[in-house]
Amino acid sequence: MSEFEIIKRYFHWESRDPTVVVGNGDDGALVQVPAGFELAVAVDTSNSGVHFPSTTPAHAVGYKSLAVNISDMAAMGATARWFTLSLSLPEVDEAWLRDFSSGLKSLAESEHLSLIGGDTTRGPLSISVQILGLVPQGTRLLRLNAQVGDVVCVTGFLGDAAAGLALVQERLSLPEAEAQYCIKRLNYPSARTVVVDFLIQHAHACIDISDGLLSEAWHLARQSGVTIELDANSLPYSPALKLLPLEQRQAFALTGGDDYELLFTLPAEKIGLLDQYFSQIHLPVTILGLIKEAKPAVRVRGAENFQTSGYDHFKY
Amino acid sequence: MSEFEIIKRYFHWESRDPTVVVGNGDDGALVQVPAGFELAVAVDTSNSGVHFPSTTPAHAVGYKSLAVNISDMAAMGATARWFTLSLSLPEVDEAWLRDFSSGLKSLAESEHLSLIGGDTTRGPLSISVQILGLVPQGTRLLRLNAQVGDVVCVTGFLGDAAAGLALVQERLSLPEAEAQYCIKRLNYPSARTVVVDFLIQHAHACIDISDGLLSEAWHLARQSGVTIELDANSLPYSPALKLLPLEQRQAFALTGGDDYELLFTLPAEKIGLLDQYFSQIHLPVTILGLIKEAKPAVRVRGAENFQTSGYDHFKY
Repeated sequence: MSEFEIIKRYFHWESRDPTVVVGNGDDGALVQVPAGFELAVAVDTSNSGVHFPSTTPAHAVGYKSLAVNISDMAAMGATARWFTLSLSLPEVDEAWLRDFSSGLKSLAESEHLSLIGGDTTRGPLSISVQILGLVPQGTRLLRLNAQVGDVVCVTGFLGDAAAGLALVQERLSLPEAEAQYCIKRLNYPSARTVVVDFLIQHAHACIDISDGLLSEAWHLARQSGVTIELDANSLPYSPALKLLPLEQRQAFALTGGDDYELLFTLPAEKIGLLDQYFSQIHLPVTILGLIKEAKPAVRVRGAENFQTSGYDHFKY
Repeated sequence: MSEFEIIKRYFHWESRDPTVVVGNGDDGALVQVPAGFELAVAVDTSNSGVHFPSTTPAHAVGYKSLAVNISDMAAMGATARWFTLSLSLPEVDEAWLRDFSSGLKSLAESEHLSLIGGDTTRGPLSISVQILGLVPQGTRLLRLNAQVGDVVCVTGFLGDAAAGLALVQERLSLPEAEAQYCIKRLNYPSARTVVVDFLIQHAHACIDISDGLLSEAWHLARQSGVTIELDANSLPYSPALKLLPLEQRQAFALTGGDDYELLFTLPAEKIGLLDQYFSQIHLPVTILGLIKEAKPAVRVRGAENFQTSGYDHFKY
């Protein structure tokens, strides 16, 4: 099967998106960016055996490679609109391609995203998604605007994906239902697009949690030049994680990656609005701590072994 | 060295580009697309050992990975403006990173392009560049608009890069100066941005030659629904290629990849303007043939062994 047949069969979806002037099939795509918006751009690459276990089902690989990029858009207050896909494959495996395409497409359709181009090459399995989104002029949400006095909040539960990875790698065991829940959280992360409207109106700073809470909190603290004080006793755990010993679930929540929840800071007087909004959308939200002073640091009360003033994520 | 240190040291360039609202360092970048333009988007991935020999100097790898994307923009009539870089590295090799960064930066600076984000991961050496450019509304240049009666033209010389690859792989020998010329054409392709102004005013259809003339002519023919008749005796050869036997240089020019010249079609009455424009910019341009009829095919006169009505490039 040629590169062109692969693209035609698996990645040439009907699009009725009027902003796509030229989609797949030319030297590049052409899209129309409406007036009054800034263009948000992000890219995220997943390599087999590094970013996901090589046993991960193809459907999940397709879904997740797009979800993590949509999460980056949400963290900027942007709505994802278009994406390109660069796919390196060691060989043409039609069953794999069908499932991968299906996982990717299911999320693209539910989020109203258009696949506008890409590149299919031969090489070790690697998926690079480049995403483009729109932010209404002046509403962007950055990492560097956290203010002293803000409360520090997080969506959803923490640590589920890290537990899911430990389960897949047989470093952990849980009852069947709870294990399936954690593995689903690992393979099918929910980009929190549903909270973007609230955040662009009320939040000061935001980041998505891809590399673990402490790591991301440190980015926020460093880039905003503030001290984040977190309370480990407030960490939000799913019923599945509550089955684990305290120290283990704390480790998953504080240092485990792949949750793709949003960490954001909010003026304290907005707590009422926060509770109201999140109860309407049926998504848990937790106040984890406070912005204490204008000096870059992260402190964790109640989990002294994770105490850190600076945290650097070494991928190497 | 951490991922953040790599980015800071090698990929965090000073930018004075006022359209870049947010560059490196947040969940994504934010840029301003001016009114009256469409956004062009392309992505091109290069894997070591597949798209370039693993012995290719890092400086050339950096330069070329951007050049091939700029070429895609030129082929659409777009001016490249911003790009992201996804870089997978097997290990942190500072000398390699310095040279790669230097090659990438030299071209980005000369083309006034801003690096606005990226992803650095661990994995087999692979470089994926996503490029964004601007096309004035209504001036886009596609593959599908070649008209019966058009002349078919190509910029520069053909086959040099394929000869360069054969030289690097020791399948060919040439005198030192000519060998160096061909290897430079392989490693440092010139994206033909200099002809974009002419093309958006006068050309009907355009494609860049990344996979060989016949392959790209077939894309044009198929997407425009026309027959392209090429004259092998008109193929433009550099002085270096003229040292090779006719059949060998024909093979390089017709089926060799990586030239990144532009193949375009033009109403016959514009030939005078064509000659005038190209002589001003000191770039060779050659009329290779004609668009004969409204039926998708490619014919090559004077090189019967390459006769083809349809050509498909199998990357697998």
